Amino acid sequence: MKPAKKRILIVGGVAGGATCAARARRLCETCEIVVFERGQHVSFANCGLPYFVGDVIATEAKLLVANPDTFKQRFNIEVHTETEVTHINREDRIIEVCDLKTGVTRQEPYDALVLATGAQPVRPPLPGIDLPGIYALRTIPDSNKIKAAAAHAKNALILGGGFIGLEMAENLVGLGLNVTLLELANQLLPPLDPEMAGYAAEKLKEHGINLRLGEAVEAFERLLNKQLRVRTSKGATLDTDLVIVGIGVRPETTLAKVAGIELGSLGGIRVDEFMHTSDLSIWAVGDVVEVKNRITQEWQLVPLAGPANRQGRVAATAIIHQFIHGDEGLPSLIFDGVLGTAVCEIFGFSIACTGANEKQLIRAGIDYEKVYLHPGHHASYFPGAKPIHIKLLFSKPDGRILGAQAVGEVGVARRIDVIATAMMNKATVFELEELELCYAPQFGSAKDPVNLAGMVAGNYLRGDLPLADWSELEETTALLVDVRSESEFNAGHIENACNIPLETLRNRLLELPKDREIWLVCGVGQRAYYAIRLLLQNGFKVKILSGGMETYQAWLRTGIK
Amino acid sequence: MKPAKKRILIVGGVAGGATCAARARRLCETCEIVVFERGQHVSFANCGLPYFVGDVIATEAKLLVANPDTFKQRFNIEVHTETEVTHINREDRIIEVCDLKTGVTRQEPYDALVLATGAQPVRPPLPGIDLPGIYALRTIPDSNKIKAAAAHAKNALILGGGFIGLEMAENLVGLGLNVTLLELANQLLPPLDPEMAGYAAEKLKEHGINLRLGEAVEAFERLLNKQLRVRTSKGATLDTDLVIVGIGVRPETTLAKVAGIELGSLGGIRVDEFMHTSDLSIWAVGDVVEVKNRITQEWQLVPLAGPANRQGRVAATAIIHQFIHGDEGLPSLIFDGVLGTAVCEIFGFSIACTGANEKQLIRAGIDYEKVYLHPGHHASYFPGAKPIHIKLLFSKPDGRILGAQAVGEVGVARRIDVIATAMMNKATVFELEELELCYAPQFGSAKDPVNLAGMVAGNYLRGDLPLADWSELEETTALLVDVRSESEFNAGHIENACNIPLETLRNRLLELPKDREIWLVCGVGQRAYYAIRLLLQNGFKVKILSGGMETYQAWLRTGIK
Repeated sequence: MKPAKKRILIVGGVAGGATCAARARRLCETCEIVVFERGQHVSFANCGLPYFVGDVIATEAKLLVANPDTFKQRFNIEVHTETEVTHINREDRIIEVCDLKTGVTRQEPYDALVLATGAQPVRPPLPGIDLPGIYALRTIPDSNKIKAAAAHAKNALILGGGFIGLEMAENLVGLGLNVTLLELANQLLPPLDPEMAGYAAEKLKEHGINLRLGEAVEAFERLLNKQLRVRTSKGATLDTDLVIVGIGVRPETTLAKVAGIELGSLGGIRVDEFMHTSDLSIWAVGDVVEVKNRITQEWQLVPLAGPANRQGRVAATAIIHQFIHGDEGLPSLIFDGVLGTAVCEIFGFSIACTGANEKQLIRAGIDYEKVYLHPGHHASYFPGAKPIHIKLLFSKPDGRILGAQAVGEVGVARRIDVIATAMMNKATVFELEELELCYAPQFGSAKDPVNLAGMVAGNYLRGDLPLADWSELEETTALLVDVRSESEFNAGHIENACNIPLETLRNRLLELPKDREIWLVCGVGQRAYYAIRLLLQNGFKVKILSGGMETYQAWLRTGIK
Repeated sequence: MKPAKKRILIVGGVAGGATCAARARRLCETCEIVVFERGQHVSFANCGLPYFVGDVIATEAKLLVANPDTFKQRFNIEVHTETEVTHINREDRIIEVCDLKTGVTRQEPYDALVLATGAQPVRPPLPGIDLPGIYALRTIPDSNKIKAAAAHAKNALILGGGFIGLEMAENLVGLGLNVTLLELANQLLPPLDPEMAGYAAEKLKEHGINLRLGEAVEAFERLLNKQLRVRTSKGATLDTDLVIVGIGVRPETTLAKVAGIELGSLGGIRVDEFMHTSDLSIWAVGDVVEVKNRITQEWQLVPLAGPANRQGRVAATAIIHQFIHGDEGLPSLIFDGVLGTAVCEIFGFSIACTGANEKQLIRAGIDYEKVYLHPGHHASYFPGAKPIHIKLLFSKPDGRILGAQAVGEVGVARRIDVIATAMMNKATVFELEELELCYAPQFGSAKDPVNLAGMVAGNYLRGDLPLADWSELEETTALLVDVRSESEFNAGHIENACNIPLETLRNRLLELPKDREIWLVCGVGQRAYYAIRLLLQNGFKVKILSGGMETYQAWLRTGIK
């Protein structure tokens, strides 16, 4: 059969579905391509919604990347909005479609079907969850409702401290609301480890947000003055005008499940590297699928726009390949898993990460080590350098980079992008040492923060820089030596630490024990590194507390003992 | 012999020399390490000098990363400033050293000698070149002289349009001077190709700089009013208060040459991957050495701080390895060549590049192709997106990335860093398509500019997007079809182009010839891509002018026919 006769139906027209449709047309001019979208809009900028609520993005029109007319005129693709696909008849390759405006259903045959049904906000089954004034943010109509509610509100309560929760907090503060944010976990931003997420928590508090970690909602009720009263797991009562539920999303798999398409253990559709489902004529892309984590090789739900777009491309390529070549040969594109690279900005402060975090590595049983560093985003001699706080995770046996987390005001996404790029090539920390990156006084340093991260990790792996873990600090019997200046030490130091400034260390070696382990600390780790080289070569047993007092403060903030 | 007895002497104490000294100490506590520096300062921020002249960096002290006391106290390294090494006695491993303050010479024996003598500004042998008021910028004293002269000057003339020339132009404009910039070549910034460098030229002109390309100085003379009169190769006469000569640097190899150490064809010291010279006891690092270009494998002079620092680390590692292991085994670090990654900012506009440019690729006989694109630095739906103009060069046979150039207001260094990182791993353009980079509305797009660059190049290599070269435009007999809207077309288009807006193209195929090649153009290349897919599948012979009208304008500006 020729592609000319083929019919591709796509269920869902936002990131993955829209990309898949456009790519399919570019590869095949003669197929029929039809997109069904339950909502009012296709191809809208999901990630812009918090900023539309916050009036940073001025008009709804800005959010519409394309509309049904664009699809028709540019790509000869039919788009049906407010049209729900209600059933898949796999045997006959027919779907049942309902026009939500008229209620009329019809049948549509397909040669290839793409499920890009996305995900739905998780709505916890709590008493009062359906009261007016409680919103989720997933669509343009959602954001219009929240905008309208916020216009009359003084107080807002956000449930969930993920990316959306934080972006909503910033935007609602921008609209002049008092914002409370509740997060069930003891940290914000689950993709980060707690000591790194703590920087974001500080930033929220600085901007007046009432941050309540480790606290969940137990019930909502409506007061006579129309405010909402929220009862929490800590017995608190919080009154608010507006609640945003942002505790995550779950794949919208109803259609797939009923049709008997294989799902994964996390509830997403199971696909292969061509985005093929368990049905030979059905593909799936975007938030509805499970993806392999490139580092842990575990299945994961990663509802991000970047992967959704790439998956759309891959699925279209596979479909057209199948039309033309059948089972012969392999499509030219594959989707090879995700690193989970992500970034978020709140109040001019960026938080970014890629790869696996400690929690994931422990769960996957991977033997890792971590380093912390706090370099300036550009050369210190040029005015305005801001610190970037970096955590780099790497494989102990071979130095392969496993993950990175970074926070700071400037240049954060850039460093995470560089590390993510290295990780796509399965690079080691040794390769980070050698990277040749842009340097001018305004942009970096002769040793870029990424080079430095590689050097610290490389020094560890070469045995030049033994590390102690901050989590062991409470229980250690090691002698803590702080090598900062006397004045820095006096301004605050770790309990029981003694002070031997780096500059005097060579002349005071006799004060140090040879039979007791010594742990070194300084401001951010650099002076401790100089000190450890000196002490190791003089036969002392010595380790460094990576990242110095800066990381110590971050650890204290987590409350972890 | 034990390292304890060994003596490392380092000639030159700025980037490469200072790094080498510090690293040697970290690896070996017991060696004697001595640095000799001809100038008044060690370890100063060379790259900051233009900004010190421009009062952006407020004090000289800011430029001093370390001083002799720091070296002594932190690293037990002796630093002798204003001390010139005048002779190397290789046979006896002794250098002759002259204290420039007293004129007294002495001899210093070494086990390992490191030449980090840097480079000297090129001073063309022109009539009047030694007149007062003509300066080069290489040291802190140089910059103090220029600051003093600029304080009384109204007009300044800069010779040379490289990075330093451009940074000086910006800073002197910042001080309120009228600036003229002369560049012998027909383009600024030799590491870039002319059509990309043209963006920087526009920026200089926008900020009132009198830019004169393809024009050289033939003579200087001093007028009675103490101004300098400059006669140029185009017969012009320019009067100015102040001249900065920034036409490049040449390796300072006098010492090495007299000692019979092997030099390369470009006049730099020849070293191996351990920074070893032709003498078993002598290493060399920094601007004085020739390095291998990672892409062309040609020797090159790359006077950049990043490579100098890494070379210092490599040399120190090799020296200590030799002390401990002699000829057995190999040192743990190597210097594996340069990509030449560089960045420069003028008036808030960034210019960055990595790898080889077209001129280098042609010279090296490498079979390459190029693509242009002009994506926004972040999602278009979020306010404030600024274009990044990108040129990507890649191998025609296998898609390996060969080089990239980018200019724009925001996010330029980030994209070049990502591409440079991919290139360190010898990545292909196909791998750029798949990179998983940071995306949030403020930071990028679901398809990052780097992904897009990979996709355009990948589409070309897969045969989906045949390209025509802008340089062939003058002579082509192809039919030029502009697929922009009528109003865009009417506002300006390529001579002889006809207009068929993309949206109408499917219905107007009969208007197009099947027997004549068609070249497509649009605004930045995206609509032409949609159009070419449609036309190729309908049997037309068709190519795209990569980068659209935006790149056309860039080509026009070069004046190349």
